[in-house]
Amino acid sequence: MIAVEQHLARILETVRPVRSFDLGVLDAQGCVLAADVQAKVQLPGFTNSAMDGYAVHAADVAGASEESPVVLPVVNDIAAGNTNALSLVMGQTMRIMTGAPMPRGADAVVPVEQTDGGVVHVSVHGSPEPGQHVRAAGEDVREGQTILRSGTLLGPGQIALLAAAGVARVRVVPRPRVVVLSTGDELVEPGREPGFGQIVDSNSVMLTAAVRSVGATPYRVGGVPDDARQLMETIESQLVRADVIITTGGVSMGAFDTVKQVLSRVGTMQFDKVAMRPGMPQGFGVLGEERVPVFTLPGNPVSALVSFHVFVAPALRAMAGRPENAWPPGYVPAVAAESWQSVPGKMEFTRVVFDGDRVRLAGGQGSHMLGALAAADALAVVPPEVTEVAEGDRVDCLPLLGAEAP
Amino acid sequence: MIAVEQHLARILETVRPVRSFDLGVLDAQGCVLAADVQAKVQLPGFTNSAMDGYAVHAADVAGASEESPVVLPVVNDIAAGNTNALSLVMGQTMRIMTGAPMPRGADAVVPVEQTDGGVVHVSVHGSPEPGQHVRAAGEDVREGQTILRSGTLLGPGQIALLAAAGVARVRVVPRPRVVVLSTGDELVEPGREPGFGQIVDSNSVMLTAAVRSVGATPYRVGGVPDDARQLMETIESQLVRADVIITTGGVSMGAFDTVKQVLSRVGTMQFDKVAMRPGMPQGFGVLGEERVPVFTLPGNPVSALVSFHVFVAPALRAMAGRPENAWPPGYVPAVAAESWQSVPGKMEFTRVVFDGDRVRLAGGQGSHMLGALAAADALAVVPPEVTEVAEGDRVDCLPLLGAEAP
Repeated sequence: MIAVEQHLARILETVRPVRSFDLGVLDAQGCVLAADVQAKVQLPGFTNSAMDGYAVHAADVAGASEESPVVLPVVNDIAAGNTNALSLVMGQTMRIMTGAPMPRGADAVVPVEQTDGGVVHVSVHGSPEPGQHVRAAGEDVREGQTILRSGTLLGPGQIALLAAAGVARVRVVPRPRVVVLSTGDELVEPGREPGFGQIVDSNSVMLTAAVRSVGATPYRVGGVPDDARQLMETIESQLVRADVIITTGGVSMGAFDTVKQVLSRVGTMQFDKVAMRPGMPQGFGVLGEERVPVFTLPGNPVSALVSFHVFVAPALRAMAGRPENAWPPGYVPAVAAESWQSVPGKMEFTRVVFDGDRVRLAGGQGSHMLGALAAADALAVVPPEVTEVAEGDRVDCLPLLGAEAP
Repeated sequence: MIAVEQHLARILETVRPVRSFDLGVLDAQGCVLAADVQAKVQLPGFTNSAMDGYAVHAADVAGASEESPVVLPVVNDIAAGNTNALSLVMGQTMRIMTGAPMPRGADAVVPVEQTDGGVVHVSVHGSPEPGQHVRAAGEDVREGQTILRSGTLLGPGQIALLAAAGVARVRVVPRPRVVVLSTGDELVEPGREPGFGQIVDSNSVMLTAAVRSVGATPYRVGGVPDDARQLMETIESQLVRADVIITTGGVSMGAFDTVKQVLSRVGTMQFDKVAMRPGMPQGFGVLGEERVPVFTLPGNPVSALVSFHVFVAPALRAMAGRPENAWPPGYVPAVAAESWQSVPGKMEFTRVVFDGDRVRLAGGQGSHMLGALAAADALAVVPPEVTEVAEGDRVDCLPLLGAEAP
């Protein structure tokens, strides 16, 4: 029996970020940059007005006030999108809109609120400093400047900066492609009615959703019968499109545990008992020339989802190039609202429901109990040496429902 | 000038959840149920073994121990997926795998670890209670039982339960469809090089990513020139596919602020100055027969993204049927690692960077500064009555990068 931390460490030592490639900036949302990015153009691209108002020579309106306004002739209107290079001579003004290019010579803007809004002549009672209400070309970003570093997670703000700085495509760590298959003669495809002795293949559906929830790209193969040859052929045919393969079922102590029988002989696959509940039987290794990581999770649905959160999700984050300890933090602290027993010598993952920052049990804790799993907000993580959680104890929780995507 | 809370309240009083429809369970990931759901089949569907071991009449092995094992003839093997209804007579046993149907008559399972693993005769040294290591049909979910309530957010666990319980399609509040358009003669499409006086339309790209990040479905129309007729035609043609329309630009004090001029006359559109920085000029109302909510955000990129987080994101969550105060909580508490000034009388949204639970300023705070925006992790929310944040003060923060999707 090995500890949870040992099994996870072996996994994280094995996996590598997926090979980087170029994506259009909008398609790269949620990905991590694989290279520093430089601005193709400066920002702002040209000196422009920060306000709707009047472009002036600041010296012309120095000392202007409500009591002694300065009147200037308005010789032009400059809208945003005006592509003419204009010049402003001393003693005159031009009406200018936010984002419109400043005329050569002008060094300040009087906001429209500090004028009478005139269109032929304007009476100005504000006296801006030189440079005031003006955005200088390049003050935000210089051309050629590194604007985002390798390792940056791309959200809306980063994508906007890339687009504005003239960057159309970026080199990123792509979303890992994850093949999901479940094993067992008892499985029927969702939508078909199970007969006596049969169950709906809900595991591959659940894990497909789980893969998607951490920002990776799932391919659901679905159920494969307990047949050694068919299982091996399926896995081999999927290796070409997979960055990761996840299987469920067939890894326990049974006489027909095909996954364990077939995969024990290939690649670096290793099958262990991990000191956790649920989720004890775990297999992991790499297969094929491309050394594709393969996770063989147990077949009980609660065991499979717990194993996903504890082992697969951290691996997928690492493969997506997410920095360790990045947002979101893994554990959410909470306080036990009731007491419960925990098995000695195993890390226990108890299904709990949040009530503010307090947690209570989510009902039936059997590893086959999907009803209670679906009612749970999080897994409370009880360390192996703890055999009882008392009301009021602090417990670390792994949220089962994420928040929002980058 | 109206308060942020006033403007948000007007928005949230206006928007309604999107009309519900049916989706396949995997497609419904991240959506909220619009109706209670009942199980089509019981779970487990049949009484089955919780362990790999031997099905027995508990009475046959009562008192079995290491010292005095009980030996029984093994008359059958039952694998998971076995669809034959078998019966076990007293004094015999059948080898049984996890998830395989219990034979009629048997009332307990001896785990393989408590036997010699024999296949013709087996020596048993465990003495399970009646019912032990057996999962009773229906003990998790009864046929017809309400398994998930209207309002439940569907993540991997919920989707697994639906599939397992024979539910193929569910009635949900669909993801809101959000049309994003930006306005201004100065805009050029991303990928084209801006000339003098022009800028890349990064706002519609940014808001498209932002819409996606809260789980809604964006349609990026892109830039529309400052032409009243063209703008109105574009908006009218988009109303048919939009649950929401977002525009940026053209809502300030300028002489060419087309959005404000065109939309002031239609629907229930209302343009206000909101006491916030950045983001003061805001418009909101409903348009067309379907009363489609329209947000007219300011054109400065930082103002637009702040407005999205403060006004649009809560509206989209409400339209998606997300319960108020649901996970994730809106604000994350943090501690100021440095002091900064804030404008009086306005709620200020300061771009900050996390350092553990402490935050420091993210650089240039100008509303046009995309470089600093892209470097920020969150917006620190400084209330109107606060004019200085001191080092060590607690500040509420709105994260700019979400975590993971449901």
